[in-house]
Amino acid sequence: MHNLPLSGARLWDSLMEMARIGGTAKGGCNRQTLTDVDAEGRALFQRWAEAAGLTMSLDRLGNMVFRREGRNPSLPPVAIGSHLDTQPTGGKYDGVLGVLAGLEIMRALHEAGAETEAPLLLINWTNEEGSRFSPPMMGSGGAMGVFTEAEILAKRSQDGAVFGEELRRIGWQGSADPAELQKVGHYLELHIEQGKLLEDGGFDVGIVTHALGQTWFEVVVEGEEAHGGSPMAGRRDALMAAAPLMAAVEEIALTTLAPSGEKGRGTVGVVEIYPSSRNIAPSRVFFTIDTRHGDPAALEEMEARFRARAAELALERGVTITVTRFWHSPLTPFDAALIQRARDSATARGFKWRDIPTGIGHDAVYMARRVPTVMVFCPCHGGLSHNEAESITPEWATAGLQVLADAALATAGLVRP
Amino acid sequence: MHNLPLSGARLWDSLMEMARIGGTAKGGCNRQTLTDVDAEGRALFQRWAEAAGLTMSLDRLGNMVFRREGRNPSLPPVAIGSHLDTQPTGGKYDGVLGVLAGLEIMRALHEAGAETEAPLLLINWTNEEGSRFSPPMMGSGGAMGVFTEAEILAKRSQDGAVFGEELRRIGWQGSADPAELQKVGHYLELHIEQGKLLEDGGFDVGIVTHALGQTWFEVVVEGEEAHGGSPMAGRRDALMAAAPLMAAVEEIALTTLAPSGEKGRGTVGVVEIYPSSRNIAPSRVFFTIDTRHGDPAALEEMEARFRARAAELALERGVTITVTRFWHSPLTPFDAALIQRARDSATARGFKWRDIPTGIGHDAVYMARRVPTVMVFCPCHGGLSHNEAESITPEWATAGLQVLADAALATAGLVRP
Repeated sequence: MHNLPLSGARLWDSLMEMARIGGTAKGGCNRQTLTDVDAEGRALFQRWAEAAGLTMSLDRLGNMVFRREGRNPSLPPVAIGSHLDTQPTGGKYDGVLGVLAGLEIMRALHEAGAETEAPLLLINWTNEEGSRFSPPMMGSGGAMGVFTEAEILAKRSQDGAVFGEELRRIGWQGSADPAELQKVGHYLELHIEQGKLLEDGGFDVGIVTHALGQTWFEVVVEGEEAHGGSPMAGRRDALMAAAPLMAAVEEIALTTLAPSGEKGRGTVGVVEIYPSSRNIAPSRVFFTIDTRHGDPAALEEMEARFRARAAELALERGVTITVTRFWHSPLTPFDAALIQRARDSATARGFKWRDIPTGIGHDAVYMARRVPTVMVFCPCHGGLSHNEAESITPEWATAGLQVLADAALATAGLVRP
Repeated sequence: MHNLPLSGARLWDSLMEMARIGGTAKGGCNRQTLTDVDAEGRALFQRWAEAAGLTMSLDRLGNMVFRREGRNPSLPPVAIGSHLDTQPTGGKYDGVLGVLAGLEIMRALHEAGAETEAPLLLINWTNEEGSRFSPPMMGSGGAMGVFTEAEILAKRSQDGAVFGEELRRIGWQGSADPAELQKVGHYLELHIEQGKLLEDGGFDVGIVTHALGQTWFEVVVEGEEAHGGSPMAGRRDALMAAAPLMAAVEEIALTTLAPSGEKGRGTVGVVEIYPSSRNIAPSRVFFTIDTRHGDPAALEEMEARFRARAAELALERGVTITVTRFWHSPLTPFDAALIQRARDSATARGFKWRDIPTGIGHDAVYMARRVPTVMVFCPCHGGLSHNEAESITPEWATAGLQVLADAALATAGLVRP
């Protein structure tokens, strides 16, 4: 523990001010990546960070990296980061809390005239959400070599916008090499839980031990168009095959268990139907699946069970069903020493805390592939996130800030105060 | 029977020429209502009809009505009609066959210098398909007083175009009163079956005795967004309630029987999901249902069973499900005397024919509310329609043309030749 005078109130004020940019009528945020409001949010963050004495480096993927020099500039830096972009109907805290908690630590260090042995970095990653340009976590994934830069810059949104063009259009493409971030010594990220285990258990903070494995799929069902007034016999209606297959995603998630009894998670998030006319049985249905599990073998089993069900339905219905892996992220353990530092902080400060896995992808999950990493979770009401009604308390935010600061400053070696 | 030299070959050539307007790479047609290609198709039809000595009256809904004067102009006219508009992925024959068969009758009369006692009308109805501007059969429905003109002219397409503005933009709004068509004496329409009962039974022609009752619904399922990585427990995923409900539409159609054992028909044609992101369990699903039955009580029972299933699922899943009637068309019998005239023609010409109901709405179904009406069905391969692969044979087209002509000319009183 340190004596740095961190201000939970200042963090909260900054969260509220950032939330005005892209703020929605329902109290949420629509600050999707590479939009004009993303640019506005970035500019505000830059002003704040520079006022706290930090120097920005902007890389070719738009990742904003602020540096606070250490007493020993040759030590690998300790980085804190998260993301300022949101879902189209996002909230005020998902991602933003982690960036602005890092900012609060930098502000407190600046005011105290404190020094650390290792340099500190504060990062705002580009396109964590993945809703406008898929897949998610492009900035951190690109930096860690999960994706190539060329591949990211060429990505297209559903409305045809090109990632690289949008990044230049909003004025946030820099010249730094994102791969430089592979030299970071340690990475820490505070984030809202996006589930309700912490709130339901009355915990102040969660120490994240690992990330669930995830596999995302695209499914295309192809049958034949038929007029709505034609007899049912002989139809090959793509939706009548797709509907039970969509329902199977939930059933499979609930019944594919790890040896510990842990269940999986399964979501169908996008459905498109063709030709989409009230009186035509559709010839084609496209849908996406997101599967997650805390047990790698069980995640594979979910896929196998889904493919078997698809094959059965294709045969039964005389349709073609194609299931394609769209994205995979393996189960990722976090760093044991950092986890212990965060646990020690929570215990020392008298917080009620628990270990918890993350079911959700985060920039920290890609960072963990190359860099010792830990995450700290802040409870959120009702587990709601990716939702305009997302909410947390200032007390929860402050608890998370303190554990993040303790673990980061112990790692970087706080010299004074 | 008459001796008029009808040309099946000329009818076929005209079908092929019309099909070039809006023709698709897969051999179908995309000549949706009130588009530039609709205007082009109308202009070609006008040139052909005027060359056959007909005079056009264009009404305020864009219905094109060509008149061939009778020996007794005060007799109620005998009208033949159908539609030239198509689905976005439509074929060459749906609607077009009926309009151009009527044109072939007019051409043959013109060449023969023949006369009829009653005047003849040839009609191209506006927006039969209903895919661009819903509901379908607006031109005939508007003329018969099913819809008001104001209501039709104000309809909007999914992309925000306004019916009345589009009609003026393409230059096909006239000044005639569509309600004048309520004074028609008899109405006859040749159309492809859009099912495969005729082809499967080896029939040359079908005599349509009645139209199935139809009810169309809109369904909205409202739950709560959840992140794809959040635990399954406590989710209120709108799609996981909607999927079994969509599947129930088919099940209910197949198991709600008339006393005769006849099954219903049920189709989900449009599905929209919100917010439509790969890693968000949706909060809202909208879908449409089209139900049809040859037994009015069974049609009501389908609705009751669907509403009961929706209520069960809403309770079970903690979601809200709203089921709204969007459109209803009661079971409609056709005119007994006209049906008999068509049967007599088919028998006299040695065709293999059967009585058949239509499961599909047609302009004839609205006409039948005010005017004695009959339809003649032409077989179509595999029952395919609303499909670019829609196909018929020239022999089937000619058989339908002959029965249509026999019934129409017997009704109008052919004087010579």
